[in-house]
Amino acid sequence: MNDRIRCESLKSRVTSAEQAARLIADGMVVGMSGFTRAGEAMAVPLALAERAKTEPLKITLLTGASLGHDLDKILAEAKVTARRMPFQSDPGLRRAINQGEVMFIDQHLSETVEQLRRGQIPGVDVAVIEAAAITADGGIIPTTSVGNSASFAILAKKVIIEINLSQPLSFEGLHDIFIPSYYPNRMPIPVVTPDSRIGTPSIPIDPDKIAAIVITEKHDSAATVAEPDDETRAIAGHLVRFFEGEVAAGRMTSRLAPLQAGIGSIANAVMHGLIDSPFEGLQMYSEVLQDSTFDLIDAGKLSFASGSSITLSEKRNAEVMAHFGRYKSKLILRPQEISNHPEVVRRLGLIAINTALEFDIYGNVNSTHVMGTHMMNGIGGSGDFARNAMLSVFVTKSVAKGGAISSVVPMVSHVDHTEHDVDILVTEQGLADLRGLAPRERAVRIIAQCAHPERRAALADYYERALSRGGQTPHLLEEAFSWHNRLRETGRM
Amino acid sequence: MNDRIRCESLKSRVTSAEQAARLIADGMVVGMSGFTRAGEAMAVPLALAERAKTEPLKITLLTGASLGHDLDKILAEAKVTARRMPFQSDPGLRRAINQGEVMFIDQHLSETVEQLRRGQIPGVDVAVIEAAAITADGGIIPTTSVGNSASFAILAKKVIIEINLSQPLSFEGLHDIFIPSYYPNRMPIPVVTPDSRIGTPSIPIDPDKIAAIVITEKHDSAATVAEPDDETRAIAGHLVRFFEGEVAAGRMTSRLAPLQAGIGSIANAVMHGLIDSPFEGLQMYSEVLQDSTFDLIDAGKLSFASGSSITLSEKRNAEVMAHFGRYKSKLILRPQEISNHPEVVRRLGLIAINTALEFDIYGNVNSTHVMGTHMMNGIGGSGDFARNAMLSVFVTKSVAKGGAISSVVPMVSHVDHTEHDVDILVTEQGLADLRGLAPRERAVRIIAQCAHPERRAALADYYERALSRGGQTPHLLEEAFSWHNRLRETGRM
Repeated sequence: MNDRIRCESLKSRVTSAEQAARLIADGMVVGMSGFTRAGEAMAVPLALAERAKTEPLKITLLTGASLGHDLDKILAEAKVTARRMPFQSDPGLRRAINQGEVMFIDQHLSETVEQLRRGQIPGVDVAVIEAAAITADGGIIPTTSVGNSASFAILAKKVIIEINLSQPLSFEGLHDIFIPSYYPNRMPIPVVTPDSRIGTPSIPIDPDKIAAIVITEKHDSAATVAEPDDETRAIAGHLVRFFEGEVAAGRMTSRLAPLQAGIGSIANAVMHGLIDSPFEGLQMYSEVLQDSTFDLIDAGKLSFASGSSITLSEKRNAEVMAHFGRYKSKLILRPQEISNHPEVVRRLGLIAINTALEFDIYGNVNSTHVMGTHMMNGIGGSGDFARNAMLSVFVTKSVAKGGAISSVVPMVSHVDHTEHDVDILVTEQGLADLRGLAPRERAVRIIAQCAHPERRAALADYYERALSRGGQTPHLLEEAFSWHNRLRETGRM
Repeated sequence: MNDRIRCESLKSRVTSAEQAARLIADGMVVGMSGFTRAGEAMAVPLALAERAKTEPLKITLLTGASLGHDLDKILAEAKVTARRMPFQSDPGLRRAINQGEVMFIDQHLSETVEQLRRGQIPGVDVAVIEAAAITADGGIIPTTSVGNSASFAILAKKVIIEINLSQPLSFEGLHDIFIPSYYPNRMPIPVVTPDSRIGTPSIPIDPDKIAAIVITEKHDSAATVAEPDDETRAIAGHLVRFFEGEVAAGRMTSRLAPLQAGIGSIANAVMHGLIDSPFEGLQMYSEVLQDSTFDLIDAGKLSFASGSSITLSEKRNAEVMAHFGRYKSKLILRPQEISNHPEVVRRLGLIAINTALEFDIYGNVNSTHVMGTHMMNGIGGSGDFARNAMLSVFVTKSVAKGGAISSVVPMVSHVDHTEHDVDILVTEQGLADLRGLAPRERAVRIIAQCAHPERRAALADYYERALSRGGQTPHLLEEAFSWHNRLRETGRM
């Protein structure tokens, strides 16, 4: 234990999860570690759920992003989670959100801690942070994610640490903790390349704030990313050919530009597609490092990857952790405020690849709301990246549910990304390069390149009839959601 | 003339506007100075319009923002403008855009020159830039706007300068020209306070690129901002009281935070409202400096203002220019890429105040499209500021056209700013503070605080019925645009 808790004065604070959870009272704001099912604290939240069976206990729960181990489901079903931000991806919590039982504040992932330190949202009473170790001066060494852990710990009144013995001590030195200076003396964030180290290897806090330490031994939940299929491989293929064209046109070198890829099967497949591409010396500046990141490193294609978490499948996790020394010098995990920071994203000139739920004929993208109303996961980092990237790409399959749903619609039922922030759309059908096009030009190209062949005529018919009304962005408002309404009424768009 | 053209080798390039305009051929991309009707070149574009009467002449026209002197109307009616970006505000051009005769690419104002230097949109063949003077080494001293002039001149193959003798030489030293370094060695933009000077007083280009110089003598078009009325004064009053609350809560000091205000009567009235407020030592980091900027300086309230242009009413223009020395040390004009830069906006922690056409019960904002289809002006800088500001405020009157149109609607007919980027909404009815609220909470507050009393019951009825469908953001998609459809059919929402 001496290597896990190196600060003498803290050793006496080791306690049970139940005891630690007593620091959290009904009505508090709790900031927990965890980003894309990596590095979340688990023992204390489970103790909270247990306690809620016998006493009133409702909290505002802040995290980095999604939690693993069904924690969001368990906390929602125990009615512990009254308010939740900034992201989630759990079916159980999703149900509670869409029923109005949990107030979900869907946020750009770079912005939550800004709002906290400005006092614009209620402050964190207790932070619960998973750590690999605590240094001699009380610094917290995170595990597989940084997320918002650093700012939560720094801003919280009290901090509970879950020391996870199953996470290797070799994680020390992986993280780069940097907190921006505050107004009115805020200075530039000095990240100038994906491998810039600008901070400290641990989260610096006053050890006196660490009110309890719980010892755990748990593995991260495995990623549930589907293997590439014919359609996601086709999407990857279109993008690789597009990049080849950009290189040929002199707009990029064969190193492309630092890559960001959203979580999920399609983005993972796209990154996989780069293994058999002519590009090399690639770098990533992203949120989550998935299987494909390590596959690209193993293939000699990727020289460096910066992210805020590592989320792997069970198989890849075993392989990577067994040989972590091989990867460590090629990786940095940062606070999500820095991994997603508009300043850094624009400076580095990223290629941002994110997934759309649906997009419309003018290139507006819905990333979050099924049928315009029901939350799927949240906007996550897609807005941070799409707005500021050198090249903003959105990918999706052209149809879903065996063709019942078209991902290309006359008007999206909810807008997360406006046409201004969308350069390239890709489906298995093809790629639409929208740069420098007016909306009327976008419509023609999107219908031709991205829509499913069975849907093109109907989309073109809508567009042609909308043209009769005129405008920069022609629409028939009384018909704009007719596809969605038909889906609701008949089960098919 | 020696003080206006200080570079000997360039004196022989003085020519007529007609002759200079011959450098522009059919099909070219032309980048012109001009931002919010300030500092536009005029003689050469008029010569182009004249020439188009007798020969085919169509161009892609890029500017900073809007042009004065009806130039956009004249060029559109002469069919010279085939493509136009990134902003306009002319009724004649607007008509051509909405009829599909001119392809208008509506852009975030900070992004146009990024796309140009990346080669993502066709490059500038000829730049036409109004200047107060040319320095001995060929540097261009702009006049009342910088806009995109610096990057246009640097990136163009040839440059035409219009020396405007009516603009005083005392403008020299007002401007701060800074061009970001390029990938992969891009460095931070070193603006850390509104008064940071980081560049050069003139636009540095190879004098050999200056292919023609035209001498003009013209005044900027006067701003057409309406005087504050009862409603805009009420909006200003709500905001001042809100700021007082923020100061009382310790979230700001009495200096507030650097202010950005969009162009137009409401934003101008809001800024005016600060004259009789308890705040002092204010600063601006904005796009356009309007009458209210100088009124605040005269009132001793505003200590510094950074912008990309100065656009004044006829009366204020005469007063300010007669005593320009009094103001010069308190002003900087920057390229719009820097005045609007996401990096700088987030670093400085701005209060951004922009005007909405309409907003919906969940806080999504339409800034551009009347009835979801017809372009008004363009998104301008509102997205650059709203996304990255410390506090993003949108203002509008609660109704328009004598009450026939409600500015608060069930669902906006076009989205420019999503709920994630909107903190505060203000109408003459009141102010809705949306920070930290989930969509269902936002709806209740927006209807109660911002909607016109005659519209509240109908909005609440829509919301209540939408709740029965559930969801994070309840809607009845088949009814979401019923207010807009009723307006189209009956002339009243």
